[in-house]
Order: sequence, then structure tokens, then C-alpha cells
Amino acid sequence: MSSIPKIVILGAGYGGVLTSLRLQKELNYNEADVTLVNKHDYHYITTHLHMPAAGTDNPENARVNISKLIDEFKIDFVKSTVVQIRPQDRKVILEDGTLSYDYLIIGLGGESETFGIPGLGEHAMNIRSINSVRLIREHIEYQFARFKREPHRTDYLTFVVGGAGFTGIEFIGELADRIPELCKQFDVDQSLVKIVNIEAAPTALPGFDPELVEYAMQVLQKKGVTFRIGTAIKECTPDGVIVGEGEEIKSQTVIWTGGVRGNRLIEEAGFETMRGRVKVDEFLRAPGHENVYILGDNSLVFNPEGRPYPPTAQMAMQQGVNCAHNLVASIRNQPLKTYTFVNKGTVASLGKGEAIGIAFGKKYKGRVAAWLKKAIDIRYLFIIGGIPLVLRKGKFL
Amino acid sequence: MSSIPKIVILGAGYGGVLTSLRLQKELNYNEADVTLVNKHDYHYITTHLHMPAAGTDNPENARVNISKLIDEFKIDFVKSTVVQIRPQDRKVILEDGTLSYDYLIIGLGGESETFGIPGLGEHAMNIRSINSVRLIREHIEYQFARFKREPHRTDYLTFVVGGAGFTGIEFIGELADRIPELCKQFDVDQSLVKIVNIEAAPTALPGFDPELVEYAMQVLQKKGVTFRIGTAIKECTPDGVIVGEGEEIKSQTVIWTGGVRGNRLIEEAGFETMRGRVKVDEFLRAPGHENVYILGDNSLVFNPEGRPYPPTAQMAMQQGVNCAHNLVASIRNQPLKTYTFVNKGTVASLGKGEAIGIAFGKKYKGRVAAWLKKAIDIRYLFIIGGIPLVLRKGKFL
Repeated sequence: MSSIPKIVILGAGYGGVLTSLRLQKELNYNEADVTLVNKHDYHYITTHLHMPAAGTDNPENARVNISKLIDEFKIDFVKSTVVQIRPQDRKVILEDGTLSYDYLIIGLGGESETFGIPGLGEHAMNIRSINSVRLIREHIEYQFARFKREPHRTDYLTFVVGGAGFTGIEFIGELADRIPELCKQFDVDQSLVKIVNIEAAPTALPGFDPELVEYAMQVLQKKGVTFRIGTAIKECTPDGVIVGEGEEIKSQTVIWTGGVRGNRLIEEAGFETMRGRVKVDEFLRAPGHENVYILGDNSLVFNPEGRPYPPTAQMAMQQGVNCAHNLVASIRNQPLKTYTFVNKGTVASLGKGEAIGIAFGKKYKGRVAAWLKKAIDIRYLFIIGGIPLVLRKGKFL
Repeated sequence: MSSIPKIVILGAGYGGVLTSLRLQKELNYNEADVTLVNKHDYHYITTHLHMPAAGTDNPENARVNISKLIDEFKIDFVKSTVVQIRPQDRKVILEDGTLSYDYLIIGLGGESETFGIPGLGEHAMNIRSINSVRLIREHIEYQFARFKREPHRTDYLTFVVGGAGFTGIEFIGELADRIPELCKQFDVDQSLVKIVNIEAAPTALPGFDPELVEYAMQVLQKKGVTFRIGTAIKECTPDGVIVGEGEEIKSQTVIWTGGVRGNRLIEEAGFETMRGRVKVDEFLRAPGHENVYILGDNSLVFNPEGRPYPPTAQMAMQQGVNCAHNLVASIRNQPLKTYTFVNKGTVASLGKGEAIGIAFGKKYKGRVAAWLKKAIDIRYLFIIGGIPLVLRKGKFL
């Protein structure tokens, strides 16, 4: 009906939400038609999912209704699942309809990367969505209840976490905090519970400051975590995992945090990808597609040394802001802005009152780092939802 | 060492606890050596288990530490599992030791009776202990979480309850109350959830007042329960139950409340039993064993018409009081007292604010009956633990 440009944003993750919020602020009345598409009617805070996964926080604190974030007078919201992207037709096929676009922003988020390890897809769980972490939490509690009925099954009390990256480390920090509570609740002898963190790389948190990594491992070991660093998972079975030279670790609970890839929909759409990610141009566009922007886990951005940045919430948020700017500039025929990642620091929590991090070029650990982590989380809530959201969701912090 | 009589009480259920409490009150100093043996260090309130099973109350409110009930200066408590009863040697073999006795009180509680229905033992859960109801609760919550990851598996949301006796009816009343909460918590469309109550007898609550049964079914149907009365479960499989002429009801959650039998240890001890129950004499003793008293689910007591009374908490409590009296009388060479069951009434809850019951010869339903149920529960807490216990555990009421 309207002849104004149609902007379609796929995915209400960090990238999609930040793009929407900025567009809503910067676009003038009737300057563009913006539609946000998301599978759920809520946005979730991925960096907070390790807490509801372990059960140390309510999943409600890790999600925000999209209607609380966007102004539905300015942006249309469609709750649906994307089935296919057709750049040649400038269309997106949804589970229950079709959308055409002039500009497309793809921020659909990543998928778990299992590197072809047999059984991981079938038998391991992932910390990747509200639904997946509710499953992990309920699964863990269920194992305690099952153990009380079958006390010879100590494999019910062994929790294997594959991957010692940020997600893996933050999750075991929470899980180690939760175990004593669960033991009390279910009358289980805590000495029977095992948390095993398995990482194929020669160190936990590869690429992070070695002194801080050492500190993190000490904190977690004190909480009862066993590390198997430099050990590859060869296979995941219904009974546990096979590591190294055929050693079996019996467990009914395997949580895989070892890798993230891009999205199959992007590969299927015909974009050139590496592991489901598009190596975007300096304006965050898919090469050869001036009207398609790719954000977050779906994008591949290289540092000046030519190595890809790990996809983080921080990067996706910055990309969202940059993308919104470029969309407005395109519509107004103004020059686009180059995207450069600005690393403001990284903090990893290690459970209650413990964290490690680098910020403002300095190292932090312990209570100060934990406080920094909270400040980052609160800042994010403030950015997307202002003071009301901080008050509503920030209680856990 | 002592030449005073040794009394051993097996099981801290309603019968064992009431016997202990009365002995502790009535025996003089050094008149007898009393030992209470129980598998757990807590007593549980069986009539309250339907609530923690459905998740409408915390399991902690359905149990009381034995140390809070008995005076350990007067009664020894041994936390152990009975392995064998040897009446010929006047000994009880425990998992980790042996006890000899002059008087034995057996109140070990019943076991689930599956009437030989294939698969019920393996695939169904029972509402019979703190551990079993914690499993049911966690299992139910887990199904909601699983469904969100596999939305085609609606069998995760079908809950089959076998048996429409008191336990079955009280449990579905609570479960029906819990479902809306779970649907909200897990973002599940409530119309997908099914509670199916299957009863082989031609009516729910066989033997109960038909008008009240009708009322109960209406209340529960309004809450979304489907009744399959006069329908036998033929088999329980990992995928659900087979009923009637081969019809399959797909479900991952089958809770069997259809029958209770006595205890295998009693059969193995050589007592004459019917389904694991001993038809006790008028003083509650095992025939041919003047020094062995049998209480609660382990005993069989006949009414004047020659039909067995259903084993209830009410009966077990009365038996405990009578048994303690007879033990003291035996020691003092005084005449024993005959046991007669006095039916003070029966109330079944149907979830929040709803119940049916008969008390003082009158019928009650709705809020009044629900209030009566609370009064009975509070009275029990008062009997076993006085005002402090009422205040501590009675909050849920």
C-alpha cells in the first residue's frame, strides 16, 4: 500500500532489538515501514541464561516481552518462525505467511556447533534459549529425584559440561552453587555429586588472560568442579560421554557449550557463508546484497590481524546500533558508517560473588569483577528498557 | 544388659509414631527399653503426599524429623532398613545390625499392589513416600520442559492416573490446580494438557456416598479431568497405557494409585498373611505370636459384617494408641484391651477450597468440607507434635 521503504528485521536477539530500538528513535513519521519478526513474543538475555539453566535464577528474569521493548505504533511485531529467506525475490517466507522487504536485517542467532561429534546432537542439551535452559534445569532436578528411587545410579548425579568457554565456565559456576541446595532439598550426600568440565583445547577460556583463567579454575575447583582440559569428547551416548582413548564418563546429563555456528537458513538462502556465518562488508551488509544486513552470531567480523572476533552480545549490540544508522542513512541517501568493533571488556561470572574480567584495560577478579558483571547486566537492561526494566528484572542482580 | 523388657517398633508411620508417643508418655522410668526403627530420619504424613506430588505444596510440609517427635531420653531411634524379621529368634535383622526384642511392633507400611498388570511396576510411579512424590513432581515439570523442545510430543502433556480411590482423586484435584501454573511457567497452551483418571470399578471412590462421588466428579471435570470409569488398565508401557479392548492412551506419565498391599517382609517372616497383611487378633497381635503387634497397612481388621476395613491413617493411629496400651498392660500383667475401629469420618480434598466428606454422620461438600479437611490435618499435627508442630508445618493449610 505505502510506497515508503519496507524494513524487515529477523530475530529479536541483541542485534535485532538494538536495531529496532534505534530505528524507532531515529526514523521520522512515515519514513519507513519496520517489521520485527521473532519466533517468541519475548527477547531473551542470552548472557544471563546460565543462571536459569542451573536453577539459580528464574527464567523470567532472563526474558522481556517484546511489547515492553518496542513501540507498536512505530514498529510492527510478527510472532512467527522464519522458514526461508529469498533474497532474489526480496521476500521472507514465514511459517504462516510471507513478508516482502526493501531492506532485510538478519539476526536469527546461531545454532550449536557439534563439530560432527557423534551423539552430541541427540543426547546433549544446549544453553541457547529460554526453552533449552528450562529443560536443563528440570532435567537436573529430575536426576536428583530419580537417584533417590534408584540409589545405585550414581550416574544420575554426574553432570558433564562440554566446553570451557564463557558459557561453559559461567554455567558450572552457577551449577556448583546450586548443588548444595539440591542435595539438601533431596537428601542427597553431596560427595556423590560430580561436575566434570571437558575441554579439548589446551586451556579453559582459550584466548583469555592466563592469570585470570588460573584464578577461575581454582575458584571452580574449590566448589567441587573437576576439569578435564585438553581432553576431547569422542562421542556422546545415552549413558554418558567417551573421552580420550575410549574412557567412558557415565552421566545422564551432558550439556554442550563447545561451539556456536551460524544459521542454516542463511546458508540455504544462498549467501556465501563459513559455518553458517556471513563475512559481512564494512557496513555489515552481505557481500553482493546492498539491502541485506547481517548481525550477531550470523555475521563474521574480522579483527585487524585477520582473525574473526568471537560473536558476543557486546558485538551484536554495537552492530545493531551501526546497522540502524546505516538503514536511516540509506533511506536518506546519506553516506554509510563503517562498523568497527570496540572491545569494552569482558567479564565472566564464576557463581555467587565471584568473577573474572578485563575492562578499561585492567584485570579484575573476585567480588569486584562480580560487581562489574552486575553493572554490565544492569546497563543492558537500562539500554533496552530504561529504569522500569531495571527495576522489574534487575532484582536478581 | 538390662533385664527390663525390650520393645522394638518397626516403622515410624502413623501406627509406629502413635505407639512410640504413647509409650513415651505411659511407661515409667526403666520399665521398658523402647527402640524405634525407621528407614528415614523423618516421619511422613501420607495423607498429605498428594500435594507435594502435584507440586502444590513443598514436600517439607509433609514430613517431620523423628527427633522432633520422640524424646530420645526415653526412646532410642535407629535409622536403618529392616532386612528380615525372625519371630522364632525374637530378632530383627537390619541392613547394618541386629536387634533382639521381647515385644515387636510391625508398622512397616504397605507396598503398591499392581494386581499383576504388566508394566505397572516398571513404568508407573506411586504416591507412597517423600522420595516417590518428589519424583512425580519433578517428572511432571520435566515433561513440560521437554514438550517445549519437542512440540509434536503431546504425550508429554497427558497425565494418566490409575485408580479413583482417595489417593487418586485427591491427587488429580491438586494436579488440576497445578496445570494452569505450569502452563504459564512453560508457555504451554493449556488445551493441550490432559488429565485422564482410569478406574476399573464401576464408580469413582467405590463404597463412598454416591451423591458426594457425583459432586466430586463434577468438580474435577470442570477442572479439566477426563474420567474413564469402569475401564481397566490392561498394560502399562513406556509409551502409555493400554485400556479396554486394546485402546492405547499415549502418555509419559502414569501414576498408579489403584491398590495397596501389605509388606513382603511380613510374608517372608512366616506370618499368615493375605496380600501381605496379617489378620490380627482382637488385641492387634499376630495369631500365634503373643508378643508381636501388627499395625496400619500391615494389619487386616474386619468389620462386624466380616469385611476388611480399608487401611487408613485414622485406623493406624487408633491402633497405635491401643497397641501402646496393651504393651504397658502386658508388662504390668494387666488385662489387654480389645481394639475396635471407630470411624470418625472421612474427607477427601478435591484441590483448593473443594472437598467432600462424611463426619459426625453428616455429608459435607465444597468449602465446608475443605475446612474440615484442614481441621483434621491440623489435629494430626497437634496430636503428634503439639502447637509448635502446627505452627511449623501447618502454614500450608
